[in-house]
Amino acid sequence: MYDMTFELHAGGGKCLYEQIYEHIKTEIKDGKLLAGERLPSTRSLADYLQVARSTVEYAYEQLLSEGYIESQPYRGYFVCAMEELFNIEEMSCGEEAKRSSAEGREGGSTSRERESWEYNFSPHDIDMSGFPFGVWKKITKNILTYGNSELFARGEAQGDYDLRETISRYLHSSRGVNCDPEQIIVGAGNDYLLMLLEKILGRHRRIAMENPTYMRTYRIFQSFAYDVVTVEMDENGMRTDCLIKENVNAAYVMPSHQYPMGIVMPIGRRIELLKWAAGGENRFLIEDDYDSEFRYYGKPIPALQASDQQGKVIYIGTFSKAIAPAIRISFMVLPRTLLERYLENCSFYSCTVSRIDQRILNEFIRDGYFERHLNKMRKIYRAKQERLLQCLEPFKERFIVSGETTGLHLILTAKGKIAEEELLEKAKEAGVKVYGLSDSMVQMSPRNAAVLLGFGGLSPEQITEGVKRLQTVWL
Amino acid sequence: MYDMTFELHAGGGKCLYEQIYEHIKTEIKDGKLLAGERLPSTRSLADYLQVARSTVEYAYEQLLSEGYIESQPYRGYFVCAMEELFNIEEMSCGEEAKRSSAEGREGGSTSRERESWEYNFSPHDIDMSGFPFGVWKKITKNILTYGNSELFARGEAQGDYDLRETISRYLHSSRGVNCDPEQIIVGAGNDYLLMLLEKILGRHRRIAMENPTYMRTYRIFQSFAYDVVTVEMDENGMRTDCLIKENVNAAYVMPSHQYPMGIVMPIGRRIELLKWAAGGENRFLIEDDYDSEFRYYGKPIPALQASDQQGKVIYIGTFSKAIAPAIRISFMVLPRTLLERYLENCSFYSCTVSRIDQRILNEFIRDGYFERHLNKMRKIYRAKQERLLQCLEPFKERFIVSGETTGLHLILTAKGKIAEEELLEKAKEAGVKVYGLSDSMVQMSPRNAAVLLGFGGLSPEQITEGVKRLQTVWL
Repeated sequence: MYDMTFELHAGGGKCLYEQIYEHIKTEIKDGKLLAGERLPSTRSLADYLQVARSTVEYAYEQLLSEGYIESQPYRGYFVCAMEELFNIEEMSCGEEAKRSSAEGREGGSTSRERESWEYNFSPHDIDMSGFPFGVWKKITKNILTYGNSELFARGEAQGDYDLRETISRYLHSSRGVNCDPEQIIVGAGNDYLLMLLEKILGRHRRIAMENPTYMRTYRIFQSFAYDVVTVEMDENGMRTDCLIKENVNAAYVMPSHQYPMGIVMPIGRRIELLKWAAGGENRFLIEDDYDSEFRYYGKPIPALQASDQQGKVIYIGTFSKAIAPAIRISFMVLPRTLLERYLENCSFYSCTVSRIDQRILNEFIRDGYFERHLNKMRKIYRAKQERLLQCLEPFKERFIVSGETTGLHLILTAKGKIAEEELLEKAKEAGVKVYGLSDSMVQMSPRNAAVLLGFGGLSPEQITEGVKRLQTVWL
Repeated sequence: MYDMTFELHAGGGKCLYEQIYEHIKTEIKDGKLLAGERLPSTRSLADYLQVARSTVEYAYEQLLSEGYIESQPYRGYFVCAMEELFNIEEMSCGEEAKRSSAEGREGGSTSRERESWEYNFSPHDIDMSGFPFGVWKKITKNILTYGNSELFARGEAQGDYDLRETISRYLHSSRGVNCDPEQIIVGAGNDYLLMLLEKILGRHRRIAMENPTYMRTYRIFQSFAYDVVTVEMDENGMRTDCLIKENVNAAYVMPSHQYPMGIVMPIGRRIELLKWAAGGENRFLIEDDYDSEFRYYGKPIPALQASDQQGKVIYIGTFSKAIAPAIRISFMVLPRTLLERYLENCSFYSCTVSRIDQRILNEFIRDGYFERHLNKMRKIYRAKQERLLQCLEPFKERFIVSGETTGLHLILTAKGKIAEEELLEKAKEAGVKVYGLSDSMVQMSPRNAAVLLGFGGLSPEQITEGVKRLQTVWL
């Protein structure tokens, strides 16, 4: 039997049972205690170490449950036979040291490596200063007060029914979308919903996108088992005559406000697309209605889905732009045919949005706060856009300004022969970040240099100052 | 020119501009206004209808932006040429009627179709009565008060660095997991993380699972382009000798507490698995550590990842069991090699968890509430388990009770020849829901009937009463 000679340290960092456990484990790992060897009985080891017998029993139990030793009835405890042990846990100290240094080096940067520019005309930034924190907080508080524990239990896969009902009403009245709550799937962001859609539509899709387009979506489709083809566009959006020539069975469009070109697709083109989709059983249109809330002239353009009578449009909407990117709530409206496929093949995927957040959003919309918030933000953004348009007046000799009906950015296209790179470089020297149209291009095509100027995240004063700087370097 | 004869209704539901807009749109769709036809000038229509000119202009602008009409400089407005129009929006009324009835029929049921049993021994239910609502609410309130707008902006794809740092510390101290915050990806639930993992690991995987196993994961793998093979298990978990024979490059295991069998994988078997994985560059082990927090005897078993020195283990953990399923926060620890693949191919997927929720969870763990909550819940669950074990004493002549070291359910295996179905049926007659082991079986294998008895969601009194009922029908 193994000779157990080791000292226990009272008052040290580790309790007695842990010291015994650690010691024996180390002995086994170091090969000092070999497979098949018998350990002292709990009674004799307790006597020897002058500890309570239960302390030793506790240590043995732990070794037993981790599989280092085994017990044989009426015989005692034996070291288990096992394959050559990796040198477990000894590395911990070294790893720890490495980790601390990694934290020191990378810790700050990863989370805050966003480049700092004096004026950043990002087309993706939104204005959070108008966000009704007070209301959001009040609703949250009420929910956690009256919220019973049910709210913390697992919810429905498609999202809570109440929220889906609220969304379907909102979509009907504000976007003309016709759908039942049953057709809606709530998910944590568009990226997730597209991943889910891949499972619903099935693999091996050939999908058409415009060029330029929203590159995030392009990369996501590429990460799927999808062939992505780009289809030429004109001033009305995706060209149907070109689409027809491609052997695709899905097309991704943003009819209410094409990103980045800002095109609102006219009804004629929409009908052409719907006709194309109706021409094949397995053809679908994916409508990304990402920022249709911010339309400054006329009443909102109905969604493409509103014109779809054949169940060909998959509608995707989000609250990222209209409320805040951080709340991570998007939704997808499936046509009936695909709903069946979803229920059959994908309904076991749990909902990705917390039920508390779903409830907050539901009350925020239901009680009219969302509409008020939208009206307020529309005014704020319109004022910013007007400011930007005004500031851009002097640019009109050398640039074309477009994309002003909707959304949170404008496009500036050079009339003369200047490279996009040069525009970006000059802006950078002046401390201003603008975004090249080529960032959104899947394939480069010969066209005049163009940049996007987003105004959502800047104050009117910043817009004025930023454009002034551009004026000094560009004009 | 088109003869515009229609009446406006003052004081009706629709404002004047909308009536004009709707009327012209309908005329176009009904083919009464044909492509190329010229509309009256805004001035003459305004005169005719006795409305302000701006009202007509507004209506025309809307038609223009939707693509029904186009303007030609110095000539006026013309109806656009377009393909045969689908009969848009006319269906709205019919659809509306259909929708209301669907809501009436399905509305309640979908959201609340959970079968009602007097005693439901679900292995997935947890006890929410111990949840520290007060603390959660306080933290939430503070965050929304001091939270600046940054919290509502888009966060890092992998999750907020602070939370990842907190998780890495927690994992190290409580699970022995060695990782940097850089290796952690926070996501909205395990299902989502598995979807992401599919993108990281790449398609065409052949993956091994135990039988029985966690069927939700099985179904998810099946929905991927994965070949799923089941590998025989013994009392130590997945049999490595069988695994070796299968031509697989990934294996999914739950070493701390196999679901549903409750097996804790001993260190010997763990090392065998790690050796297998080390034998191929592209081989990985997916460790699902779903409920290791609830261990009732001895100190926690370290995670398999803790023994991994070759970067072979993908560790997945969740707060669904330990806090609440509804908060939808899980995390994945990637080995360095896969981290690179993630950063290259998948880091454009936005994080699926709201930053507010991330911050709440971070403070909940960081400030020690999580540990206190776990200690409290461990006691509550241990008491429930003891109660269940005690109540099951009379069953021991005819059943074997197992799985008592960890987790929120026990297994009852019949010693004699009785069908699982019969056990379930009899329980049902007594108003008691128990769960057949076959629910977790990918392939049926000849074994004695067994049922799972979960105790997380039942009170001690309900446990006593429920088991009493089982006693009357089973013994």
